[in-house]
Amino acid sequence: MDEFKLIDQFFAGRGTLRDDVRIGIGDDAAVARWDEDYELVIATDTICEGTHFLPGAPPHALGHRCLAVNLSDLAAMGAEPLWCTLALSLPEAEPDWVGRFADGFFALANRFQTALIGGDTIRGPLAMTVTVHGRVTPGRAVCRDGAREGDLIYVTGKPGMAAAGLAALREFGANADAGSESVRRFLYPEPRIMEGRALAGLAAAMIDVSDGLMVDATRMLAASGFGARMDIGNLPPVEYAVNDVQGLTLNGGDDYELCFALPPECEPELRKRVADWPCPVTGIGAVTRNTDIVWCINGQPCNTVTAQYEHFS
Amino acid sequence: MDEFKLIDQFFAGRGTLRDDVRIGIGDDAAVARWDEDYELVIATDTICEGTHFLPGAPPHALGHRCLAVNLSDLAAMGAEPLWCTLALSLPEAEPDWVGRFADGFFALANRFQTALIGGDTIRGPLAMTVTVHGRVTPGRAVCRDGAREGDLIYVTGKPGMAAAGLAALREFGANADAGSESVRRFLYPEPRIMEGRALAGLAAAMIDVSDGLMVDATRMLAASGFGARMDIGNLPPVEYAVNDVQGLTLNGGDDYELCFALPPECEPELRKRVADWPCPVTGIGAVTRNTDIVWCINGQPCNTVTAQYEHFS
Repeated sequence: MDEFKLIDQFFAGRGTLRDDVRIGIGDDAAVARWDEDYELVIATDTICEGTHFLPGAPPHALGHRCLAVNLSDLAAMGAEPLWCTLALSLPEAEPDWVGRFADGFFALANRFQTALIGGDTIRGPLAMTVTVHGRVTPGRAVCRDGAREGDLIYVTGKPGMAAAGLAALREFGANADAGSESVRRFLYPEPRIMEGRALAGLAAAMIDVSDGLMVDATRMLAASGFGARMDIGNLPPVEYAVNDVQGLTLNGGDDYELCFALPPECEPELRKRVADWPCPVTGIGAVTRNTDIVWCINGQPCNTVTAQYEHFS
Repeated sequence: MDEFKLIDQFFAGRGTLRDDVRIGIGDDAAVARWDEDYELVIATDTICEGTHFLPGAPPHALGHRCLAVNLSDLAAMGAEPLWCTLALSLPEAEPDWVGRFADGFFALANRFQTALIGGDTIRGPLAMTVTVHGRVTPGRAVCRDGAREGDLIYVTGKPGMAAAGLAALREFGANADAGSESVRRFLYPEPRIMEGRALAGLAAAMIDVSDGLMVDATRMLAASGFGARMDIGNLPPVEYAVNDVQGLTLNGGDDYELCFALPPECEPELRKRVADWPCPVTGIGAVTRNTDIVWCINGQPCNTVTAQYEHFS
């Protein structure tokens, strides 16, 4: 696990506890009391030039991305988005750039009926922090720790595709094929809000895949206290001419897909619900009592000795 | 007004509107529907090395500051703090530094019973974005736009004191007198939560003084559509040996004091409420129908042709 994730441990379980907080630090989002009908779901994520996106990245795509990565956290809890705030740090106040950034931001916000209710714009290195607020029926937020022995494990979309797009952008820069699926997936990650909401009350555990399928599935299983036998052989192929497609699938990040565990008796209901989804949903394993996690491809063990995806640096 | 504040106009009044949002962009904080007894108050602010604090600033003070500037926004709405999230961008993951930062953060959070419920730690330039959540009785949030002709204008504390402390730190560095009131005020701004809550239902308009008394009082009066005749002659003196004490008082920033307008008939009630406050409260003017704002000191017009405080750069 990367050293910056470890820093979170300086903040978890410390300070004031309040009984109006249902779920605090440690999941994709926090859950707090709201009214009789709903609980409030809150998440925050920063993206920063050089760590999460390349210098010169198109402002419209950044406006989309900074909100999308946060909406993805709401999706992973099964929540419906409501409002967001935006803290924007800019090296210079350039109206053209900001206008295109705002267009990308609002295009996504409007699709998910998310109101921008506050913000702060400062001079500083290029970075954006969004905080999103959503709601969920009381007790229906899907946490990371609910997977149990025998549950089936699934993932949406095509893990590794966004990392393939990033690889293309790094290799070909402005000459990369902007219309290719992989580049679009990297530049415009799609938060799986509808899918996440459909899984609330059905999935036993869920996480969004932002740091790579292997790392994030491991987080979910570790939080649940179980292991798994995984097989990625049925995943849709990643569109990119590299030798290490398996490495991209396991360790490529920035996908913002949903990985979830499902009690096997819920499989027929899942099949019904996914019928109208725009993305594939692939079974990739089953939860085991043993806390080891074994990764295979078509029954053959994978080489999993690969570095964790750190976006890029 | 600085160019970065103008950027906010790219985001105000755009995108999805929701009827569960009572107050959106443009005040110290947003207000949203909660339950029968309370409304939810939400604010976000970033502080960034080189823009809001000096390189090498003590981590304990930064942990305090990033939360304090946000709690100050809740104070300016008259709200009671509940929860916060922290997005922390660090050039390197240094446990000692982070430990001292967390100590400063939680010392303040615990004083105001504010629970840290989520966060994100990333590699990047040193910066912190906090989002705070508070609550207020429905309809009692104090906005910037409620000042009316004849209202009296007050400010808490000693405006200019924090800027004097910053001047001392810039001039003397590590040799500055860390125990002096001005340096303490700069390093450890005190959010006026108790004072702001006591003013809910009493003050007609309120703002927190973060960019300087002149700029922020002007913002409140502009939002209200009125002017004022101001006199800073009764303000407590600023402790710093500079020629331009008047400039510090008018344009010094980082005070995080509260400036508010009060209907004159509420003055006796105000006197009662301030009796146990730890900070002075000084009358500095009255709202006029004419939208001009005249600044005086003991009846003599001030020199107000001074640059806006931009923290520092």
